[in-house]
Amino acid sequence: MKGPLLVILLYVSQQVRRGAYVHGYHHRENDRLQDQAGTLVAYPPGSVVLEAGCGIGAQTVTLAQRSPDARFTSVDVSADSVAQAKRTTDAAGITNVQFQQADIFALPFAPESFDHVFICFVLEHLSRPAEALTILNRLLRPGGTITVIEGDHGSTCFHSDSGAARMAIQCLVESQRLAGGNALIGRQLYPLMVEAGLEAIRVSPRMVYVDSSRPDLVDGFTRKTFTAMIEGVRESAIEAGIIDREAFDAGVRDLHRTTEADGVFCYTFFKGVGEKHKS
Amino acid sequence: MKGPLLVILLYVSQQVRRGAYVHGYHHRENDRLQDQAGTLVAYPPGSVVLEAGCGIGAQTVTLAQRSPDARFTSVDVSADSVAQAKRTTDAAGITNVQFQQADIFALPFAPESFDHVFICFVLEHLSRPAEALTILNRLLRPGGTITVIEGDHGSTCFHSDSGAARMAIQCLVESQRLAGGNALIGRQLYPLMVEAGLEAIRVSPRMVYVDSSRPDLVDGFTRKTFTAMIEGVRESAIEAGIIDREAFDAGVRDLHRTTEADGVFCYTFFKGVGEKHKS
Repeated sequence: MKGPLLVILLYVSQQVRRGAYVHGYHHRENDRLQDQAGTLVAYPPGSVVLEAGCGIGAQTVTLAQRSPDARFTSVDVSADSVAQAKRTTDAAGITNVQFQQADIFALPFAPESFDHVFICFVLEHLSRPAEALTILNRLLRPGGTITVIEGDHGSTCFHSDSGAARMAIQCLVESQRLAGGNALIGRQLYPLMVEAGLEAIRVSPRMVYVDSSRPDLVDGFTRKTFTAMIEGVRESAIEAGIIDREAFDAGVRDLHRTTEADGVFCYTFFKGVGEKHKS
Repeated sequence: MKGPLLVILLYVSQQVRRGAYVHGYHHRENDRLQDQAGTLVAYPPGSVVLEAGCGIGAQTVTLAQRSPDARFTSVDVSADSVAQAKRTTDAAGITNVQFQQADIFALPFAPESFDHVFICFVLEHLSRPAEALTILNRLLRPGGTITVIEGDHGSTCFHSDSGAARMAIQCLVESQRLAGGNALIGRQLYPLMVEAGLEAIRVSPRMVYVDSSRPDLVDGFTRKTFTAMIEGVRESAIEAGIIDREAFDAGVRDLHRTTEADGVFCYTFFKGVGEKHKS
């Protein structure tokens, strides 16, 4: 597989798209991270697949390259993102993806148009995630599958443990809630997929575990992805009165402490796969 | 493998040994749970292995059965536990284990006596866990390995999320701290093993993920292991003034909520393997 972009990079890019400031990130350990996040998905030849919420196409590249004989339709609510996704896949020489600007809640497709649906790091930003899944389920042929991948900002576990760091993380959770989203959605995939009428649902957690024996992850994940994401809500959280400046900065300092030689940081992604009723 | 006892059962038994009340538990999904907790370990024929802190021998049975041509020495600080462990392994027809009552901090073995050391759900109860690992490291031959397995009560992640439930869990963390132990030790295996002078350390997390599609785990793990363990500190936590009765009971009710049809519960075990310096 040539140059697949990191799922983490996609994640960062989605946060950037939504206004959070994030430092630069170097591409490394791609497969391992993608595998850990559960985003390495392959579809059979001939499959017709909808990618709902493709963003700037980081994930689209990997999807299309891993399933060269499947046909993808990738949609995003942002026309700018769709245009950038198209440039990215064109540059990668990918020819099995069609792009379209569309809102998940108003998709221009007939029922049962797709064999499979893939939706990654999207539900966390929607105020009606179960309704979105219900709509996507309708677009599936009987027996088709939906694959859903989400993080969960409340799943973090780190050493040294720190109440201040947990409060800083809570600022992102609260900010996302105020914006109509849900930063704790990973753990909820199962009930959401049940509510959407999916069957044979299997949810599997994918923990990214980071200690100082894995310096690329210390730098790329703990420091430049997760902590940077938290730092990205500093101004808005202080402005919204969720936290004061000193408390927030103390929390971020403690998150950086987890990147030192004796530090440990864990974060869990959740992957859910469900089927549409067969008859 | 015939009738291996659950790692969870061992865990429960260790809590019982330490005074926490726990409901009965039915044996099911043995291999899957053991695999998830990372306790399925096999040693090469001829290996001489120390099991440090064998308790009542639940884990000893599995260890000895999976490595029938290794020789185990299993020790525990409690003579009663050792006697019960011997009865258990005798009943299982196991002949490759020697038992001995001994304190980890005063082990009657010469340096470099063992090829491997196995220590599971023990460090969480010690006030000097790194010192214990240092002592065990001394007993290893050069190039030998230590396998350490611990849970982490701060690693829980559940739906519906509940501050009250998190407070009730914190009572167990606090109780264990007051007793000289550390209920958040799982995430600390890496720095502890570094401090003990181990090399080539690899820590891997093992999450037990439970939703209502896995009724055996809902009952056996979330309800009868984890929540029961929390309920076990009710009186002592209230007596110690850590929490009041109403708040504790509200937390336990919310933990039980996670066992309903739309509930989800996650808990992470950590497994660390390190080597003794080769020369």
